[in-house]
Amino acid sequence: MNYDAAFTAALDDLRDEGNYRTFAELERHRGAFPRATRHGHDGADEVTVWCSNDYLGMGQHPEVLSAMHAAIDGAGAGAGGTRNISGNTRYHAELEAELADLHGKPAALVFTSGYVANWATLGTLAARLPGCIVLSDAKNHASMIEGIRHSGAEKRIWAHNELADLEAQLAAVPHGRPKIVAFESVYSMDGDIAPIAEICDLAERYGALTYLDEVHAVGLYGPRGAGIAEARGLMHRVDVIEGTLGKAFGVMGGYIAASAPLVDFVRSFASGFIFTTALPPSVAAGALAAIRHLKTSAAERAGQQARVAELRSRLDAIGVPHLKNCSHIVPVMVGDPVKCRYISDLLLDEFGIYIQPINYPTVPRGTERLRITPSPVHTDADMDRLVAALGELWARCQLARRPMAAQ
Amino acid sequence: MNYDAAFTAALDDLRDEGNYRTFAELERHRGAFPRATRHGHDGADEVTVWCSNDYLGMGQHPEVLSAMHAAIDGAGAGAGGTRNISGNTRYHAELEAELADLHGKPAALVFTSGYVANWATLGTLAARLPGCIVLSDAKNHASMIEGIRHSGAEKRIWAHNELADLEAQLAAVPHGRPKIVAFESVYSMDGDIAPIAEICDLAERYGALTYLDEVHAVGLYGPRGAGIAEARGLMHRVDVIEGTLGKAFGVMGGYIAASAPLVDFVRSFASGFIFTTALPPSVAAGALAAIRHLKTSAAERAGQQARVAELRSRLDAIGVPHLKNCSHIVPVMVGDPVKCRYISDLLLDEFGIYIQPINYPTVPRGTERLRITPSPVHTDADMDRLVAALGELWARCQLARRPMAAQ
Ligand SMILES: Cc1ncc(COP(=O)(O)O)c(C=O)c1O
Ligand SMILES: Cc1ncc(COP(=O)(O)O)c(C=O)c1O
Repeated sequence: MNYDAAFTAALDDLRDEGNYRTFAELERHRGAFPRATRHGHDGADEVTVWCSNDYLGMGQHPEVLSAMHAAIDGAGAGAGGTRNISGNTRYHAELEAELADLHGKPAALVFTSGYVANWATLGTLAARLPGCIVLSDAKNHASMIEGIRHSGAEKRIWAHNELADLEAQLAAVPHGRPKIVAFESVYSMDGDIAPIAEICDLAERYGALTYLDEVHAVGLYGPRGAGIAEARGLMHRVDVIEGTLGKAFGVMGGYIAASAPLVDFVRSFASGFIFTTALPPSVAAGALAAIRHLKTSAAERAGQQARVAELRSRLDAIGVPHLKNCSHIVPVMVGDPVKCRYISDLLLDEFGIYIQPINYPTVPRGTERLRITPSPVHTDADMDRLVAALGELWARCQLARRPMAAQ
Repeated sequence: MNYDAAFTAALDDLRDEGNYRTFAELERHRGAFPRATRHGHDGADEVTVWCSNDYLGMGQHPEVLSAMHAAIDGAGAGAGGTRNISGNTRYHAELEAELADLHGKPAALVFTSGYVANWATLGTLAARLPGCIVLSDAKNHASMIEGIRHSGAEKRIWAHNELADLEAQLAAVPHGRPKIVAFESVYSMDGDIAPIAEICDLAERYGALTYLDEVHAVGLYGPRGAGIAEARGLMHRVDVIEGTLGKAFGVMGGYIAASAPLVDFVRSFASGFIFTTALPPSVAAGALAAIRHLKTSAAERAGQQARVAELRSRLDAIGVPHLKNCSHIVPVMVGDPVKCRYISDLLLDEFGIYIQPINYPTVPRGTERLRITPSPVHTDADMDRLVAALGELWARCQLARRPMAAQ
């Protein structure tokens, strides 16, 4: 058995279909974001990052950085153990209290990432509620899909954001069986937003738990930055709110906020929570500082929304097609993996603009795109350069233009 | 459906059997480890930690801390994206190069934790090698078990460290099917060590890939701290070496080191690697500093081994039973969850000694224990207090004494 040959063959297939990934190697500079140094093939050059999930630039925020420095000076590098075995610190406890408060829930639990939060929570709830059926939105994130799959529970997929389909499927579940409706608020790659209130209505009617991934919304929406459910006054109607500390909050980690018994249940039974080293105190402290800052400061959110609106109208003006949505995510559709990478390469090499091509498996084949995430730290000059570059490439590569945004 | 009632009932069952966990809340102080402040019920007090997996105190090492500070000053808080989408930094690249070099492998890949490294790598390899069968040691860690289960591949469990059983099971696998032999070097809870050479012999004979978890060995064994395989001159014979950055290296994260095609394959296909925010630059930088330090400094390893030998002989002298093994882990067996927690509570409350009780599901029911991990930063006075406290509690609780270590 030649294992390496098997791996190489699979990688060659990826290459053939244009889906082999090479990672741009970046060096961000504190205080200079969205500028970064790109290291690579022939030396280093300065680029402007337009595809970061550090949506508000909190990864550069002085309060976040000084909280991290202070935690390192106070407590050292790592947690030194799992949460149960010597790794549970004051930093973790404070962070969980803050998250519970943010989402108006009695309790919260921190995981090493948003991925693990989804995987471990859904995996545990669905496996341990006897007879549980999970109703999963068709566009749910990989981490939710893997968690549901891992649980071994029965799964029903409902058409993305389609209430009628969700209702039909809920109605078809045998009465009395536990049910979890799993969905996201802002869908990361299309930027569309779920009808949370209506989903909660249905869940209530059919006695289902609601599980909402707000990974691309926490920090960004709502008066205190708790997400779309907060913005719409719906936090109390969602049973489990899941989020990340690695995107708008700028650091790393994930969490759930929910009822005390549910959180304690996951804490007590989830393998992915129990059997892993806890987040370093500095990471917990940095995330805590970001959450606290964004709880009271709306300036970053307002700045981002303004930049997003500006980019959309300028793309419309030059006819570069982008998906319309109500969020901060601007997907410029290309629809071909090779072309998508080609444009991304040209943007990087000729214009110093870094927008990673989004290809399969992150999005379905045929929907390859450039996913642009304007932030409050992008200047007018950055925007001028981006729009000019896209205009030039659209002409040079003879890509279709549209007078209006595509759907 | 009353979900909270179902969760509460399950938690009550845990409580009844003595397996409900409460986390001690600790505050470590830079430079003062193993001393920590315990926060809790009635105020704060000083404790000595004897159960940390920061085995060598690297979580306090000045080189590690200054590397973390420098990375925060240089690059900010988080990575800002997945490795593919804007989160790949110079820090990650350097760390992977260092890990490949440490293990004498062509390539390495960093994950957000050792748990995710195991889960994602085994999950991906076993799922994507058509017809793959995984032969898994009976005492493998939860993260390996979950990864194998997740892959959907056929699994055969071989008796812990039993070569005859492994061989019988390998011989029974239909010829030509891909096979992975998954095992650990140092088993975390018993501290015993696998016969790596003999396992590699068998794997070679039967054409199996070898997957070795060195989570409790990296940094601790071998002339450069690469683990047991290095100490025994066997690194080149193991196909995949998996490790953590969160124990002896003192920070957080996990990795694999292997052939370039295997690593590239996992990089390209593993959901748990692809769809998650990358480690913060400061975490990568801290781990890198710890690895580099332990590559050339053997003082920490020697100090630890001396402390371990000292504790063993002093436990023997007072007849407190502990599992004999060749590693740095000293399991003091209690064999009952309630008693185990009781002793742990008394150690904490009366003696200021923190040793978390290890109960189900971390160890099988009936094998509850105190898992002691002496480190080079524990002083003679610390050891005096620990041994005196254990002696007193063994008398007070009428626990069995043995003239020699139990097996
Ligand atoms: C919808 C969604 N959920 C969860 C995650 C995982 O979060 P994290 O990056 O913290 O692991 C991501 C992306 O990474 C995501 O897009
Ligand atoms: C044998 C073993 N493998 C893997 C892990 C997971 O490593 P990490 O803590 O980095 O997630 C652990 C413990 O946490 C372990 O004991």
